[in-house]
Order: sequence, then structure tokens, then C-alpha cells
Amino acid sequence: MSTRLSLDPAYLLDAIPAADLERAMARAREARETLLRRDGAGGEFLGWMDLPRDAPAERERILTAAQRIADSSDVLVVVGIGGSYLGARAVIDACAPQLAGNGLRVVYAGHHLSGRYLSGLLSSLSDARVSVNVISKSGTTTEPALAFRVIKTWMEARYGRAGAAQRITATTDRARGALRELAGTEGYETFVIPDDVGGRFSVLTPVGLLPIAAAGIDISALLDGADLERERALVADAADNPALHYAAIRQALRESGKAVEILASFHPELQQVCEWWKQLYGESEGKNGIGLFPASVCDTTDLHSLGQFIQDGSRNLFETFLTVAGEDMDTDVPVMDGDADGLNYLAGRNFSWINAQALHATALAHREGGTPNMTITIPALDAHSVGQLLYFFEAAVAFSGYAQGVNPFDQPGVEAYKRNMFALLGKPGFEDAAAALRAKDAQR
Amino acid sequence: MSTRLSLDPAYLLDAIPAADLERAMARAREARETLLRRDGAGGEFLGWMDLPRDAPAERERILTAAQRIADSSDVLVVVGIGGSYLGARAVIDACAPQLAGNGLRVVYAGHHLSGRYLSGLLSSLSDARVSVNVISKSGTTTEPALAFRVIKTWMEARYGRAGAAQRITATTDRARGALRELAGTEGYETFVIPDDVGGRFSVLTPVGLLPIAAAGIDISALLDGADLERERALVADAADNPALHYAAIRQALRESGKAVEILASFHPELQQVCEWWKQLYGESEGKNGIGLFPASVCDTTDLHSLGQFIQDGSRNLFETFLTVAGEDMDTDVPVMDGDADGLNYLAGRNFSWINAQALHATALAHREGGTPNMTITIPALDAHSVGQLLYFFEAAVAFSGYAQGVNPFDQPGVEAYKRNMFALLGKPGFEDAAAALRAKDAQR
Repeated sequence: MSTRLSLDPAYLLDAIPAADLERAMARAREARETLLRRDGAGGEFLGWMDLPRDAPAERERILTAAQRIADSSDVLVVVGIGGSYLGARAVIDACAPQLAGNGLRVVYAGHHLSGRYLSGLLSSLSDARVSVNVISKSGTTTEPALAFRVIKTWMEARYGRAGAAQRITATTDRARGALRELAGTEGYETFVIPDDVGGRFSVLTPVGLLPIAAAGIDISALLDGADLERERALVADAADNPALHYAAIRQALRESGKAVEILASFHPELQQVCEWWKQLYGESEGKNGIGLFPASVCDTTDLHSLGQFIQDGSRNLFETFLTVAGEDMDTDVPVMDGDADGLNYLAGRNFSWINAQALHATALAHREGGTPNMTITIPALDAHSVGQLLYFFEAAVAFSGYAQGVNPFDQPGVEAYKRNMFALLGKPGFEDAAAALRAKDAQR
Repeated sequence: MSTRLSLDPAYLLDAIPAADLERAMARAREARETLLRRDGAGGEFLGWMDLPRDAPAERERILTAAQRIADSSDVLVVVGIGGSYLGARAVIDACAPQLAGNGLRVVYAGHHLSGRYLSGLLSSLSDARVSVNVISKSGTTTEPALAFRVIKTWMEARYGRAGAAQRITATTDRARGALRELAGTEGYETFVIPDDVGGRFSVLTPVGLLPIAAAGIDISALLDGADLERERALVADAADNPALHYAAIRQALRESGKAVEILASFHPELQQVCEWWKQLYGESEGKNGIGLFPASVCDTTDLHSLGQFIQDGSRNLFETFLTVAGEDMDTDVPVMDGDADGLNYLAGRNFSWINAQALHATALAHREGGTPNMTITIPALDAHSVGQLLYFFEAAVAFSGYAQGVNPFDQPGVEAYKRNMFALLGKPGFEDAAAALRAKDAQR
């Protein structure tokens, strides 16, 4: 069985004329050259490229802190939003048995403004030993900062101020910002978010690595997997380079008029990888009035939901399946006396074989219905495979974004709602903006 | 405070010329006439229209069974896929405190083909008292039928065959099918899926009502809420009818070139309502090569993920916000000595007020960025409000589908992957289809 991620474009290629694909491939190669020269737009945010080889000393410190958290806690509360938690959650859900119930449990807070969720979460932790990892570059992002205020108060009421400080770890800017300052005052252990890595590319920094390691996942294997894919993505010829190939295919499809890419996982463990992917692709490419809208489904679940649309609705979609090679250590289909459901023909088969047939069947059906598709296969649901997948998607979006003619490393549109929100919340300094909003609303 | 669902189109209307909206309204009204005459396409599947007023005797039997399940069980495993579980899950997540940890816990199986999930789920139940509700019209749908084989075997090993039979309830066809037959043989209590209600419209039949009631949610309030909205949706003039208005607006936007509708919830409890909505709208309208692609986000979470795209990416989107009036019984923002994060200006505010400002800020920002939007507000996160919301969406998709010129009650495209899958799985009777698939693959 292969130990490498692969990309199978078999149900796709006749949707793209060969000349168009060739042109898209050439542009993807040029985009890679730009990336490697580090002189394209957003060139100050290319730290992610080398993370798999970065900072072995820091890695040791992460492992030590993770072990301390795991030894002293039943639950780790990760406080962060967007790139500050999506990567960790993706890897943890993919690699840690979700329902096994042993080991440290990682839960999330500060990723929205639901007070009901937050108070419910804290109530549910009354019998657990709790540690907290608060993750924010600035320390002033509204959602995690507000949640952290509540959680800090709760931790201090429970463990005392000094006891809480030993159970709180801050991942933040190297030198500046509110959280850096607070950590200094309170005496929290800190980890650094590098200046040259954007939030959505930060999973292989301490942002992701600390909670992932605390959850008991092998971060060395994760980084090794990423490094393996790094070598291929940044170096290999197009024909042997899935990341370059993926970038070219999606740009060719975009130019042919496709508006939506659906990442369709066939394993529930990969659902949060799809959420991470949506941020990575949506923020990197959705700008200047263009970009493929990134959507996701979890199959076969959503074949009974969005399947009808993908088969037969608007023909402005394409699909990227995400699956895992080999077979799980899972349940076989038992025999049923009398064969009431007519499924004895599958008795003795295991579920992952059946799932693989369902994927093949779906790829073919959707292609025939007019939704071209390709399939990404990773070797296993383990840290090494997921590391490959993360780097694959990161490299591909850099190639694809440059090929599309945008800066894949900024996110100027994220600020618009924040400015309005600060005005409506009455934040000092936003008085004029507040007056302007009130005037607009009066004209509605 | 209002006790009724409302629709606010304030950040939308200038995106649609008045004449276009008027035309769309006229078509929506005609669509409603067709629906009320019951002579349009799919007229044999209109049972959902009257469900809020249906079958009080059966309601009593549901309540009795639900009470028995709740008294005898810690966990209810709902086995179903698509319309057989999405409605129950939506209502349970919206109305039952997710993290409280008291009362019956409802978990789901048979909604995909992951053997790892299934075996992990059963392992996690070793210390719990378990009941099962298997939901399938035919009893032969692959995913739930396979999962039920495994779960039935597990239940019988644990409780004996007779003991298991007392803990398994089947919701299925009135007279025919594999599950009806099996239930007869085994002695399971059964509930009926009416012939004139399609899967995605079945939440107010026993399909949804039994698990919802078992979870401790007031199904009379749910049905009363639905009935209240029924009166308005089927009767009221356009100006006072949010369902008609919503149908007309989305068709006008579709005709203006919008390709994707994003349902954006501002409450994590409503995420599964969005999943239910995606099936309802995707299956009802995504056919004949047309339809709005239904996507969802959970805010403010996804403002830090897809927010960039919605603000500034391809301008082929519109957005429907989903929120809850009033304030939760939730946490206030505590004061922080020294104000390290600069958020003391919010001290004493509660989270739901801040969340409401974030929604207002976002609606305005996205509108200015070129993503028109409207807001659906329900009075509270309770059964009566959610009942209103379910009927609102069901009625609106019927109006909208007819106005779009499709049969909103069929789903012909769902079968395509199944035929391929049966062939690949070696199902008896699909030998020719299997040979044809092999030939196609050989040509790849």
C-alpha cells in the first residue's frame, strides 16, 4: 500500500480541454516559481513553507508542556477563532478516536459569541481537571478575548490565581500585544506565533502543535508527513506533483465557469479538515470579486441531502473527494437469519470496503450527471498522513492563488464587519463610525 | 417581545428592482394557489401541509413510548439517514441544552458507512442503558440497514432477543417493506411514516416526533408553533407573509444571477437546522440543471473563515441570517483589572447583546460588499419557535420550487449513485450494470 497522498483525476479530465489544462499547468508552475523566489504578493507571510523543518528546540518545549497538560488534566479548553483553532481541531478529529473516551479531551471556546454555549461548557467541566490554551496573536480579537475573560475568572475561582496561572498557556505574538502582556503579568507559559505565518497557515506552529500534542498525537510524525509532501510540492515536476496538479485543475475549472468546489469527505473523522480547508481556500482566493466558493459535504451522509443537487442541480459545481486508503479495524456486516433486509449478500464484508464502493459509485454518477470530480487519497487516518494532507492543501492554495492573480496571504475583507461591530458596541475611538452607521440605518 | 417568526429584508431590497420583486411575488402567490389546489407536480406528497393538525391519538402513543424510552434509557440511538434523522437532530440540538449532560442523550447511527464510528459508538455505550429507534420507510436503505444489523446484534448480545425487542422501536411504512416485516417478526413497537410525506418533510411525523419527545422536548408546543405558521403561510397576504416573501426574494435573486444561498446562523444551537435546511432546499430545488446551491455557515465562527469570501469574493452569493430574539440566560462580560485586552468598555454587557451587534454589523458589511442579505428571527430557542421555523421553511420551499418551475417533492437524482453502488457491491440483479461499469472504467 502506498505511503503517499495521491490525486486521481480520472472522473475529471474530459471536462477540461487538454490545451486549457496545459495552460493552467504552465501558470501553476509559474506561480510556484514566484513562491520560491519569495517576491510575489504577500511575500512576508511565507514562513509556513518551512515549518516542517523548523525549530527543533521549540518542539521539545511543546512536548514537555503537552505532557504536563495531559498528566494534570482531563480536559484542555482551546480558546481561539479561525486559524487559531481550526487546524488543531482538524488534526485532533482526524487522528484521535473521537468516541473512545480515554485520554485528554480537547474542547473549544472563544470561537463564537454564544454565552449559552460558554456557560454550558463551564458547567459541564465542574468535575474535570481543566487546563486552558488561549491562542491569539493580538489578544484583542473580540470573541476569544471575551471568552478568555470568563474562563480566566472561572479558573481563578476554582484554582486560585496562582493555580490558574499554572494551568493556562498562552500562544501569542513574540513581543507585543495584550495577551503577551497579560501572560507576563500573570506568569503564563507562552508559545510564539511567528510573524511570517498567517492564521490559516499556522497549524504547524505552536498554535496547532501544542493542543495536538496534548491530545496525544505524534507531532513529529505530523511534521515528517508535512515535510515529505513539502519536498514533492515545491520541487517535483507537474506530472508527479499532486499539489501543482490540483492547483491547475481547479483554476482550469474556475475559468470554464465553475463557481463552487465541494470538498466531499467519505470519513466523518475528516469533517473538520473540510472546515479548515474552507478557511484556507476561502480566505486565500475569495477576493477582488472572484474565487471558487468552497463548500463541503460529509458522505455518504450528504448523498441523502445535497446529493440530488450535485447530481442534477445547477451545473456550476465540481467536487473533490477526500478519502483514506486501506481498511479500518472496523465491524463486518453480520448475517441476518431470514435476510429480511436483503443484505446477506454483503455478510462478512467490512464497512470500509463498502464505503470505498460507495465513493467509486458516487464519483462515476456525479461525473455522468455533469459534476466533474477528482479524488484525494491519504494512506491512513494517522498523523503522518494528515501532515501530508495539510502541506498539500497549503502549497496548492499558494500555487492556485498566484495563478488566479490574487495575493493568497492577505484577508482584507475580514475587517469590514469588525469596524461596524466596534462602532455598534461603542468601542472608544469608533464614535464617528457609529454616527455614520446610525445615519445609514435611519435611511433604510 | 414578538412571539412570531419574522423576516427582515432591510439589507436586501435595493439589490432587486421593485418590478422584479413584484413579478416574483406574483409567481409565489400563484405557486401557493397551485399548492392549495393540490394539483401541481408531486401533489401526492402534500401530507406535510396538515401535519401540525394531524392524528392526536397517535400523538398520545408517541408520548407514551417516548416516556418509556426516557425512563429506561440513558441513550437513544437513532438509526436513519437524510430525512430520517436530520429533522430530529435539528430540533433536539436547537431546544435541548447540548452540554447540560442531564436527561436522555440522543446519538445517531446509520447516517454513513464508517465502521470505525459505529464500533466506537457502541464501545462508548458499554455503561449506558440503551434504546434504539430505527427509521426507514423501506428498511433496505443501505446505510441504516447495515448499521441496524450491527446494532441489533449488539443489543441482542446485551439484552437477549426479547429484551432487545422491548428496547427497539421501528418507524417505517404502514404495511410493506423489510423493516415492517422484521418488526412484526421480532415484536418491535412500530410507528408509521405516512405515504404522502417525503423524507425531508417528515420531521413532524413520528420520524421526528418520537426522538424529539424522548429527548424531553414538548412536541405539542412544536406542533402548535408549526400550526401557527401554517395559518399564516397558507393564508396571509404577501405583505404579511414571511414564507411567501422569502420564496419570492430568493427566486428574484436567483433570476438576477445569484448562484449560492448561504444560511448563516448566529447561534451554534441552530447549526443542525442549517443541515436540515440544506437537504430541504437542495433536494427540492436542485434539479433539471438549475437551483440555488444551499450552503451554511455558523457565525461569528465563520466570519473568521468564509467571511473574507462573503465580503469580497465572487459576487454570486446572497445570505440569509438566522437568529433568535431576546437575550439568553447567559454570562456577562467580567471586569478585568488593568484592562489588558481593552474590553472593559463591554464589562457588564451580556454575550447575546454583543452577538446581536455582531449580526447587525455583518449584515451591513456584507451588503456594502455586494452580498445582499435578509434576516429570519425566531422568538426563542424553544419548541414553539422552532416549530414555526420548520413550517416556514417547508411552506417557503414549496412556493419557491413551484415558482421555479420544478417539482419540489421528488428527488430523482438521489438514485444514480445507488444504482452504481449496488452494481459495485455485487447486489443480485445488478450484474449487467456491474459489467457496464467495468467496461466504462476500462476506458478511463
